[in-house]
Amino acid sequence: MLKPLGDRIIIELEEVEQTTSFGIIVPDSAKEKPQQGVVVAVGTGRVLDNGTRVELDVKVNDRIIFSQYAGTEVKYDGKEYLILSEKDVLAIAE
Amino acid sequence: MLKPLGDRIIIELEEVEQTTSFGIIVPDSAKEKPQQGVVVAVGTGRVLDNGTRVELDVKVNDRIIFSQYAGTEVKYDGKEYLILSEKDVLAIAE
Amino acid sequence: MLKPLGDRIIIELEEVEQTTSFGIIVPDSAKEKPQQGVVVAVGTGRVLDNGTRVELDVKVNDRIIFSQYAGTEVKYDGKEYLILSEKDVLAIAE
Amino acid sequence: MLKPLGDRIIIELEEVEQTTSFGIIVPDSAKEKPQQGVVVAVGTGRVLDNGTRVELDVKVNDRIIFSQYAGTEVKYDGKEYLILSEKDVLAIAE
Amino acid sequence: MLKPLGDRIIIELEEVEQTTSFGIIVPDSAKEKPQQGVVVAVGTGRVLDNGTRVELDVKVNDRIIFSQYAGTEVKYDGKEYLILSEKDVLAIAE
Amino acid sequence: MLKPLGDRIIIELEEVEQTTSFGIIVPDSAKEKPQQGVVVAVGTGRVLDNGTRVELDVKVNDRIIFSQYAGTEVKYDGKEYLILSEKDVLAIAE
Amino acid sequence: MLKPLGDRIIIELEEVEQTTSFGIIVPDSAKEKPQQGVVVAVGTGRVLDNGTRVELDVKVNDRIIFSQYAGTEVKYDGKEYLILSEKDVLAIAE
Repeated sequence: MLKPLGDRIIIELEEVEQTTSFGIIVPDSAKEKPQQGVVVAVGTGRVLDNGTRVELDVKVNDRIIFSQYAGTEVKYDGKEYLILSEKDVLAIAE
Repeated sequence: MLKPLGDRIIIELEEVEQTTSFGIIVPDSAKEKPQQGVVVAVGTGRVLDNGTRVELDVKVNDRIIFSQYAGTEVKYDGKEYLILSEKDVLAIAE
Repeated sequence: MLKPLGDRIIIELEEVEQTTSFGIIVPDSAKEKPQQGVVVAVGTGRVLDNGTRVELDVKVNDRIIFSQYAGTEVKYDGKEYLILSEKDVLAIAE
Repeated sequence: MLKPLGDRIIIELEEVEQTTSFGIIVPDSAKEKPQQGVVVAVGTGRVLDNGTRVELDVKVNDRIIFSQYAGTEVKYDGKEYLILSEKDVLAIAE
Repeated sequence: MLKPLGDRIIIELEEVEQTTSFGIIVPDSAKEKPQQGVVVAVGTGRVLDNGTRVELDVKVNDRIIFSQYAGTEVKYDGKEYLILSEKDVLAIAE
Repeated sequence: MLKPLGDRIIIELEEVEQTTSFGIIVPDSAKEKPQQGVVVAVGTGRVLDNGTRVELDVKVNDRIIFSQYAGTEVKYDGKEYLILSEKDVLAIAE
Repeated sequence: MLKPLGDRIIIELEEVEQTTSFGIIVPDSAKEKPQQGVVVAVGTGRVLDNGTRVELDVKVNDRIIFSQYAGTEVKYDGKEYLILSEKDVLAIAE
């Protein structure tokens, strides 16, 4: 299994319905498109300047929404994952 | 429901009247145009370097004004939301 | 009424006399041109890394001078305001 | 009178003799040219991360030398001033 | 032997299977490709602003995954190593 | 006399022998060329985030070596000086 | 003798065998090439935000490996040195 470090999490991607279709360039398209995934592993948290460690708010099995260009794709044991920082998580879908 | 992390909030957009019309390029148009929305969810706040968590000043149901290009659009359960950081909130309309 | 967050303030703009006229490009024009306004609302201050909140030095009704390109224009209840950070305030005119 | 905020000071400019004349491009011209002025007002100092305020080292009536492109020109009561941060002050001429 | 400083680690590279083949430019290719290696030495950790030293989470013999362009290649005693910061380690493969 | 602020120092420049001659572009020329001077005045030091002031390591009369493009040239009382931050001092020649 | 300040060290360069030969542009060449030297002097360490000074991990006579473009070349007493920050030291060769 992959074990992320610090404030990183590992997710499996899920397909998000894409109903939006764009013309040439419209102002609203300047905003980021989010993506969705399920958390399969979380790091032990980042260390603050006073030496204490802050646990992540995200838990394993959370379904999360994150920024489109965040993270690094990893292929491990024949499956594809995305490793990203908790800072790139926008929201948890409950 | 979507649950934002840290200092993020989720809003539903509202249309703002647009009475301003611009010519080619005028100095004043260098300033950002704000947008308006209603808060539907708030994060648990950011963690300071001393380990304490600062609650958000923005509450659910607040009508807020925010910078034009801030945030990420999310479609969830057939509705559109915008996820943005509290730092991008300019003011609350009371 | 609009209520600014953190270290932000809301001002009504005032016209400043403009006696300077520029030629093509002169070295001095590299400096910023300030603008003037009257404060109509102030935020509750920014939160320091030790968790305490620092009140703003600027008060409602202060006449302030600020950097030319600072802030975001907001139209609210038919009136125009400018929302800016206290950091963009150069001086108070007493 | 103008009252600067934080670590800002207000000065009246003084002319500095300019005996240097430049050719096209010489290596030494890569360095900044300083300017000189007399302090007419100082801010109450910046607030440290622990909440204490640090008074300015510069006092009213100090003759200071500062970086060429620092500051913002302000016209007030018919006189011209320059508002700049204490960080832009290079030295006090005693 | 090479002894890394601070939060740096030294690894021996391992070949990762490369089954992905790209066309011209596809959106997903904007993401980083990770690499894999085995840790052969770790630094004594970084020093926090309060003066305490934080030990690394990565240990010697850990098999790690890291960002593609991270680190500096070093040839020592006829063998090739990569020196990188723990911050560039994405996950440990257990 | 000129009195520098904070972590700034004032030096008189000294000529450094220049035996190196360059061809067109060689990799090594990417490194900075240092300069040399004698310290004539030092600031009272910078203020840390906890409010204490750190005295400079450089003393008056030290012969120092500093980065080529650092500092601001000042002409005062007919003599030329260079004002630079202690951070730009590479070493003291003893 | 040259005495470096803060977290700086002074080294004498050593030649590193260069067996690698590059073609036009290959992905791996995006990584930095390290260099090697022997430490002849170390600074007294950097000052933390709480006012304490952190001694360097590098000692005189250490053989170190550092990033290719780090540091400033200095000629002193007819010999050539390189002054660099401890942050640019990748590893100590023991």
